[in-house]
Amino acid sequence: MEIFYANQISGNEVFLDTEESSHCVRVLRHRTGDEITVVDGQGTMMRCVLTDDSPKGAAAQILERFPDWGGHPYSLTMAVCPTKNNDRFEWFVEKATEVGVDRIVPVIGERSERRVFKPERSRKIALSAMKQSLKAALPLIDEPCPVKDFILASGDDVPLPLPAASQPYPGKWSRAGAVITGAENKTDRGIKIICYCFEGETERRSIEDVLREVPEGADITIMIGPEGDFSPEEARLAVENGFIPVHLGPSRLRTETAAVTAATAVYLHFIK
Amino acid sequence: MEIFYANQISGNEVFLDTEESSHCVRVLRHRTGDEITVVDGQGTMMRCVLTDDSPKGAAAQILERFPDWGGHPYSLTMAVCPTKNNDRFEWFVEKATEVGVDRIVPVIGERSERRVFKPERSRKIALSAMKQSLKAALPLIDEPCPVKDFILASGDDVPLPLPAASQPYPGKWSRAGAVITGAENKTDRGIKIICYCFEGETERRSIEDVLREVPEGADITIMIGPEGDFSPEEARLAVENGFIPVHLGPSRLRTETAAVTAATAVYLHFIK
Repeated sequence: MEIFYANQISGNEVFLDTEESSHCVRVLRHRTGDEITVVDGQGTMMRCVLTDDSPKGAAAQILERFPDWGGHPYSLTMAVCPTKNNDRFEWFVEKATEVGVDRIVPVIGERSERRVFKPERSRKIALSAMKQSLKAALPLIDEPCPVKDFILASGDDVPLPLPAASQPYPGKWSRAGAVITGAENKTDRGIKIICYCFEGETERRSIEDVLREVPEGADITIMIGPEGDFSPEEARLAVENGFIPVHLGPSRLRTETAAVTAATAVYLHFIK
Repeated sequence: MEIFYANQISGNEVFLDTEESSHCVRVLRHRTGDEITVVDGQGTMMRCVLTDDSPKGAAAQILERFPDWGGHPYSLTMAVCPTKNNDRFEWFVEKATEVGVDRIVPVIGERSERRVFKPERSRKIALSAMKQSLKAALPLIDEPCPVKDFILASGDDVPLPLPAASQPYPGKWSRAGAVITGAENKTDRGIKIICYCFEGETERRSIEDVLREVPEGADITIMIGPEGDFSPEEARLAVENGFIPVHLGPSRLRTETAAVTAATAVYLHFIK
């Protein structure tokens, strides 16, 4: 099953960008009249018929809409420190997208060795992983922001940095995770978790133990530190702002493995 | 913390191979008298003192032994079809080793596109992942074997293909998983799982549902199919031979993602 992505939709018409058009018309040789499957990156899959097979800008007519297609019953924001080796972070982006994630925030910690991160490549990877895993919602990938800014933004009413313009408007799940406010955190739908390795002042529970209390539809935010872990100050600030300190069990996991393990724990928690 | 691997141990003396010796002496400049940490690949960590700093064949004296170091309270055999793209399988090997796996059997299914697999590279990756994640047991990586042979070997008293000579003697956990016999499967310590995507004759339960019944110390075997999934015949044969058919939830996962998700589900199940 081949899926195309269109972020430009007006009424019942969808427009594919150059890359998608070329793939649809040049590579897969679709012609006007062919039925194709298009997703809007916001959670809706659309059965369409191709009305313009131009390889630079194809267009299609929507026949049927399937909202929340390939979605999941929670909203997950993963705030993860980019790894020294970019491939490892991009691998996390691919795997988290396959399993189910709504928003990825590259956060820069005091001990991060990589302090610069360009989201473009990761966004491409998320897009192809979304299509490959038959999902209709494209995870948002933010511009990088400092760990402490992310913690503070998640703890009060200041919205997190807005997604870059190149991103489609956040869909149902993404929107749920996009702006975390103090108010939301006071409801039982929002839960914030920070994973770190050292024994801080606050005792850490296991992620399994914490997830047991998380209901369907919850907005879950999970922070994962850099190779050198969070600093004690970052951990303290997070706990002061309502993050629950957790561990991921006895194994010592790399940053990207910890991030995928945490996202997988959330995914598995909601499987009956 | 730097860990060295030695599969040659006699009494209280450990011998590092050329690669480990060179890394220990040339790269890290350890000298006779230095204290080093060595693992035997069978689950035991040893605090040692370097007695011979030859960069081609270093030796050390064991001061203290720590059995079952970085181990896990289960034995996990992952029988996974190698992916078209070798990197993806090797990525699974690295992540499964970090999380905790005892034996990896590359199985070739009727629909496998990759029908040839050389374990050498994966064994190197498992070794460095073991050291990086501070474990003392090296997962066994078998020579490839056909899916049906694996199923039949796991269902009667014929032991699975023996690990290649280049592998260290299987340690505590590995040994538990290494030879699955009908007799073992009749005890409540052994459980066999097959993950596939299509709806077979037998209804599939979720892996979470099945794992709920699995006690500590269990021998768990999980089979993951190739890109094209198992054939219905392979699935039927597995079920006839005591494999429980499971699904990994609603997301469509790549072969290597499914394998890591299943290994992670087992790991998380045993976290209190």
